[in-house]
Amino acid sequence: MKTRALASELAGLGGQEVHLEGWVHRVRDLGGVRFMVLRDRSGQAQIVVPGEISLGAVNCEWVVAVDGHCRHESRAPAGVEVLARRVVPICKAEQPPFDLFDPHAATRNRLDTLLEHRALSLRLPDAQDVFRVQAVVLRAFRKYLRAQGFTEILTPKLVLAGAEGGSAIFEVRYFERSAYLAQSPQFYKQMMVGSGLERVFEVGHVYRAEKSETSRHLTEYVSLDFEMAFVESEQDVMAVHTGLIAAIFAAVKEQCSEVLRKRRVEIPDFAEIPQVSFSEARRILSEQFSKTDGLNGDLDTEGEQLICEWAARELASELLYVTGYHIEKRPFYTMPNAEAPPQTRSFDLLFRGVEITTGGQRIHDHDQLVASIRSRSLEPGHFEGYFEAFEHGMPPHGGMGMGIERLLKQMLHLDNIREACAFPRDRHRLSP
Amino acid sequence: MKTRALASELAGLGGQEVHLEGWVHRVRDLGGVRFMVLRDRSGQAQIVVPGEISLGAVNCEWVVAVDGHCRHESRAPAGVEVLARRVVPICKAEQPPFDLFDPHAATRNRLDTLLEHRALSLRLPDAQDVFRVQAVVLRAFRKYLRAQGFTEILTPKLVLAGAEGGSAIFEVRYFERSAYLAQSPQFYKQMMVGSGLERVFEVGHVYRAEKSETSRHLTEYVSLDFEMAFVESEQDVMAVHTGLIAAIFAAVKEQCSEVLRKRRVEIPDFAEIPQVSFSEARRILSEQFSKTDGLNGDLDTEGEQLICEWAARELASELLYVTGYHIEKRPFYTMPNAEAPPQTRSFDLLFRGVEITTGGQRIHDHDQLVASIRSRSLEPGHFEGYFEAFEHGMPPHGGMGMGIERLLKQMLHLDNIREACAFPRDRHRLSP
Repeated sequence: MKTRALASELAGLGGQEVHLEGWVHRVRDLGGVRFMVLRDRSGQAQIVVPGEISLGAVNCEWVVAVDGHCRHESRAPAGVEVLARRVVPICKAEQPPFDLFDPHAATRNRLDTLLEHRALSLRLPDAQDVFRVQAVVLRAFRKYLRAQGFTEILTPKLVLAGAEGGSAIFEVRYFERSAYLAQSPQFYKQMMVGSGLERVFEVGHVYRAEKSETSRHLTEYVSLDFEMAFVESEQDVMAVHTGLIAAIFAAVKEQCSEVLRKRRVEIPDFAEIPQVSFSEARRILSEQFSKTDGLNGDLDTEGEQLICEWAARELASELLYVTGYHIEKRPFYTMPNAEAPPQTRSFDLLFRGVEITTGGQRIHDHDQLVASIRSRSLEPGHFEGYFEAFEHGMPPHGGMGMGIERLLKQMLHLDNIREACAFPRDRHRLSP
Repeated sequence: MKTRALASELAGLGGQEVHLEGWVHRVRDLGGVRFMVLRDRSGQAQIVVPGEISLGAVNCEWVVAVDGHCRHESRAPAGVEVLARRVVPICKAEQPPFDLFDPHAATRNRLDTLLEHRALSLRLPDAQDVFRVQAVVLRAFRKYLRAQGFTEILTPKLVLAGAEGGSAIFEVRYFERSAYLAQSPQFYKQMMVGSGLERVFEVGHVYRAEKSETSRHLTEYVSLDFEMAFVESEQDVMAVHTGLIAAIFAAVKEQCSEVLRKRRVEIPDFAEIPQVSFSEARRILSEQFSKTDGLNGDLDTEGEQLICEWAARELASELLYVTGYHIEKRPFYTMPNAEAPPQTRSFDLLFRGVEITTGGQRIHDHDQLVASIRSRSLEPGHFEGYFEAFEHGMPPHGGMGMGIERLLKQMLHLDNIREACAFPRDRHRLSP
């Protein structure tokens, strides 16, 4: 195999013979001289194809190999271009349903069209950038938590009962009986905390059988979760979480600066994230926005938007913690705030008008947990293996969960969460 | 909150006042002096509890805080112990169904018992070690591939049709229709290769509705997958894969040396991994082991064991690639070996008698892929979005998949794959 050069390496290869492989991004015939843009995983290269080389049927999206001479050319994208000596077709291609070289393809076409042709629309550099940022977020998430003494865990997604209650759960035919798809890794990360690992994190799929289709919900998404033992309150969880968000933002700013520049996106700098309690938020919404509905124990969509408007204006922050949601709006494992019922030791992190994280302290006392589940008319028997951890000594603990798609959507100002998922799933979409 | 010291930090804290938090691993009353072993995420600490301190009901698995004086004591585990000034119960515990301080608890109890009480059996230091090694493997896998230019991807597990064929697929009630749980990320990682990312990897759950219960199968497991473009044959995939296995082994040896020592496990050193073709393997099995059955295009369980015996003896290797499996035993997307039908450009990696990796080159030509799927009596229509990638230019590519539980089982000489999964799923087990 000839040593392959990547497009991004050409700047250092001026004057040398090179071998490139990639996709034909575009071919233009400027009266005798043909310019071909070759796309590979590193970027794009400008190829000059002299008249004596026949390209045959080679056109956009064909996979080709190019041998040629790399030379400096100030008008070429990276200051170099390749004068082709040979262009060898590797795999032919039909004409795509939309032009992949069109810089406005992502906006000229409906999102539905782009998602139907996902294998192709992922080739759009703008679409692909999202998933390069995603990889940076994943790495930063794990790196930060590992440095804080967390251990990565893997927990089952086929379960006997849902952790989050409600009916939004998918049923699986499991041999002679029914299983369900986990709505969150909640019970399992708590059991792993109780196993003595104390501090655990997981990156894994979760499932919500949401009938409603919105620009911010998916039926299958990837949750970034951590859970930690020996906390005094939800504030200890928030402190780790704040450090985590700062580490993720810093990694994206450092490693994805080109994407941020292209998209004209700013990632906020912050030293700390301001907090308001739900009661304060409710007062502010009433006084400053005359909003009083949709605030029964937590914030509705509009409430989240407006309180973020307030935080941007009054606190100059795009990030805001809201704490102390009411007990009836949080899952049964949520630690109540004994000093201020019906408040709980819970928090959400709002970012640019949308909740991206849900977290809090959990109940660790067995009898309190049983009483809590009974008060929801749930049956402790369905959660037997989970309760066993609590019968045998659980430390005070808490944690959080954050959907990576929603974080990407808010961070990159995407219009729809489906743009932040390579192959999104919703009520009507199961393919590709 | 008082600054908490971890058990592992005590060696450097001799002479100082310390605050510890953890689980009571064991209490022994040696006539007036009570010794308590406190367990936390970092290890165990010896606590001396003077007679004037009442422990009340505190016993094994209670969660407690201890304040005391850390002092050198040559007979204590790490050369230090803590003379308690105060022991504060944080959470009470019932007596466990088996003694967690018994070093032989994992062997004295049936695996079924341990799995039924998983929240507790995960507290056994020997059981937990497996998941500490797992975290090291996950990190090494990603780190090596990132350094080779791979991008991490996340792909859906809810799909319209299985990638691997056969009937071993779980059905999900998806609103008004049926979905299935992905048997592998195969189609999606290929589409991501074709998107131009070229080199991708994923860590994700996969599902096999296997009715048979063996010591090496789970119905839900975590697959480590990579896929790479611009390969000349399966040998390019194997070269990256060999480097990957070497990197994983090196990380485990370096970061888990204590676990390996305790378990008396050796991880092999190797410069390269020997290869035999399936035809050679068949000849060797016939000539040296008089085995001729169960070798119709691939190796059965016994064949894998015996060829590994041969490799250990003749090649002094615990790892062995077997290449060139026959076309009818590999999935439809497998690249045939045009020069030597019915062989394919596929490989398995066998480790200590068991297949841990399946990989190979894939078909990249659209028409060849359609012909291949038709020859299996499958309907290309079910895979529309996948085929679209191939209509529009796919590079030659290949990849592999490896179940992390099986890798851990073989690496740590576990008897049963269920020991390598925190919450294993099989035909009869769906909880905890």
